[in-house]
Amino acid sequence: MNARNRQNGPLRLLKEIMSKPDGANKRVLIAGGCGFLGSHLCDELLKRPEVTKLVCVDNLWTGDVANIKHLNDQRFHFVESDVETFRSDHLFDEVYHFASPASPPWYMAEPARTISANIVGALRLLELLKPGGRFAYTSTSEVYGEPLVTPQPESFRGWVDCTGPRSSYDEAKRATEALLFETRRTRGLDLRVTRLFNVYGPRTREDDGRAISNFITQALGGKPITVFGDGTQSRSWGYVSDLVEGMARFFWRDTFDYLGPLNLGNEREISVIDIARYVSELTGGQPIVHLEPAPQDPTNRCPDLTIARQVLPGWSCEVPFEEGVRRTLEWFREGSAAQQAAGETRAARA
Amino acid sequence: MNARNRQNGPLRLLKEIMSKPDGANKRVLIAGGCGFLGSHLCDELLKRPEVTKLVCVDNLWTGDVANIKHLNDQRFHFVESDVETFRSDHLFDEVYHFASPASPPWYMAEPARTISANIVGALRLLELLKPGGRFAYTSTSEVYGEPLVTPQPESFRGWVDCTGPRSSYDEAKRATEALLFETRRTRGLDLRVTRLFNVYGPRTREDDGRAISNFITQALGGKPITVFGDGTQSRSWGYVSDLVEGMARFFWRDTFDYLGPLNLGNEREISVIDIARYVSELTGGQPIVHLEPAPQDPTNRCPDLTIARQVLPGWSCEVPFEEGVRRTLEWFREGSAAQQAAGETRAARA
Repeated sequence: MNARNRQNGPLRLLKEIMSKPDGANKRVLIAGGCGFLGSHLCDELLKRPEVTKLVCVDNLWTGDVANIKHLNDQRFHFVESDVETFRSDHLFDEVYHFASPASPPWYMAEPARTISANIVGALRLLELLKPGGRFAYTSTSEVYGEPLVTPQPESFRGWVDCTGPRSSYDEAKRATEALLFETRRTRGLDLRVTRLFNVYGPRTREDDGRAISNFITQALGGKPITVFGDGTQSRSWGYVSDLVEGMARFFWRDTFDYLGPLNLGNEREISVIDIARYVSELTGGQPIVHLEPAPQDPTNRCPDLTIARQVLPGWSCEVPFEEGVRRTLEWFREGSAAQQAAGETRAARA
Repeated sequence: MNARNRQNGPLRLLKEIMSKPDGANKRVLIAGGCGFLGSHLCDELLKRPEVTKLVCVDNLWTGDVANIKHLNDQRFHFVESDVETFRSDHLFDEVYHFASPASPPWYMAEPARTISANIVGALRLLELLKPGGRFAYTSTSEVYGEPLVTPQPESFRGWVDCTGPRSSYDEAKRATEALLFETRRTRGLDLRVTRLFNVYGPRTREDDGRAISNFITQALGGKPITVFGDGTQSRSWGYVSDLVEGMARFFWRDTFDYLGPLNLGNEREISVIDIARYVSELTGGQPIVHLEPAPQDPTNRCPDLTIARQVLPGWSCEVPFEEGVRRTLEWFREGSAAQQAAGETRAARA
């Protein structure tokens, strides 16, 4: 044992603190952590022992505190605030920007707020990141707009109408990507951007408005299943646990050769009408009715996962669509049952 | 004469004020009014007698007070401020959003600031517009990115790399268009958006960095003219007075059938090397040297003016390129001469 190892008391303690590996004692911030995806990411973040504090900021616009109520963890702190005006007395080692509505009826109703949450949110969150810290952003396959090629590789620049009815979301995501990649180029930034393809699963809002959850809540409510247009438009539906695992692998590994945005999704493309039929079948044969096509609804969507396979070897979407829909249906059923039970309890008390 | 017309005194005055046509007594705000284009628009705005107040807000990032020093007009008020934080004790009847750098070396050096000026600037300016007021925004042909078709109609959705080195400008413009068109859809807005194609002329900064002014200042400084790549990339160069006239016609007319973004530019496409040669010829044969191609420099750029001809009958770019370059050269020469004279005066005084 040499002299160095015989140091005792405050000096040794100080040295220990100073020499802690980078991985230890991480303060982490997630914006939009009460949302569908954000809350699942909170679950994953809290599995990491080096995360000593996880601050979740959410204005509960589309997020819901019900999604985080199971998090009985002293490291977890929820702050109800817009991301644009969120203040903190310290900086963060990792920042996850999940603050955005993702469903057309929500972002089309409040386009300025959608643009602000993404872009002004990102500008604010960059200020809260420690120098050398990591910034992760969930972008979307919607940056590709109408797909002129299929599957869509990350190099497909997109075919988006920047004056159209879906533009607040699509262009907010594109401009936020631009902000982040250009910030990396000019100032340096450990940046992770995923482009997610149609994620579904538990913790989707009942009134979210996207296909799978919509069909399920309609069917469970005894209503007809409504399909926009003829339903031949297809999507690549990714079950949330698969997508969250892909994100965790991409966001938490320290070194990568690949620096661009990463497609994450399920390669299996299924038409909207097939989903409607499957949900109808599972719920006792609810009828399907067709509505006017949604404006500028992409005809199809399928991720090119060539880069994902190189960057995240071994990762793929494992939950088959049929299984994922059943699990989601079960979750919505439990929620309805719980609500009904609570209602009955209230009624009995009254 | 009936009883109504015999009213006198304060009541009549009040009635007169209340019944003033909408066109009278306009408070106008221009953001970026000290810039190249913005200052020319200030000149035009002050020609309108119904404009009773013109507030110009500019942070002088790329703008220059020299561009407005000739404006001896009591209606004109300059406020040095970022557009994002500009405050006013009243709202405006018309708002013109010209606040953005437009030259690659400027926006590539400060991408976050560029995105903020456009998008956060637009969010702020929308708050300063009277209900029912008019909002005008100068967008750009850069929303088209690499042109997959030529000429580019407004319906060409663009081929822009939202992670590339020009993305802060291109995507800021696209997202601001999205914000404005979606604000019109959801809240109503008298909106005018122009997509300008490569404007040049007097009041360009000496250090602006774009081709024509760059070549002229290099040649006048006795330096070689530097061309990025082989110079075969072409642009449609519009002389500033032509473009400003097009904007004035589009911005100031009260009714239009056309509600989309409007291409404004010169249809005559000229290669960068041809411009370099012409400037060299005009300035005594300065040599031309070639530099590495600029990253993601569009190969060509040409406006489809089909809609402009319908919406603005009689308008077109009248100043031939050769004449416009001569005028711009003359303006830069006068500036140099004035600077030199001022320098000699200072030297003589010292």
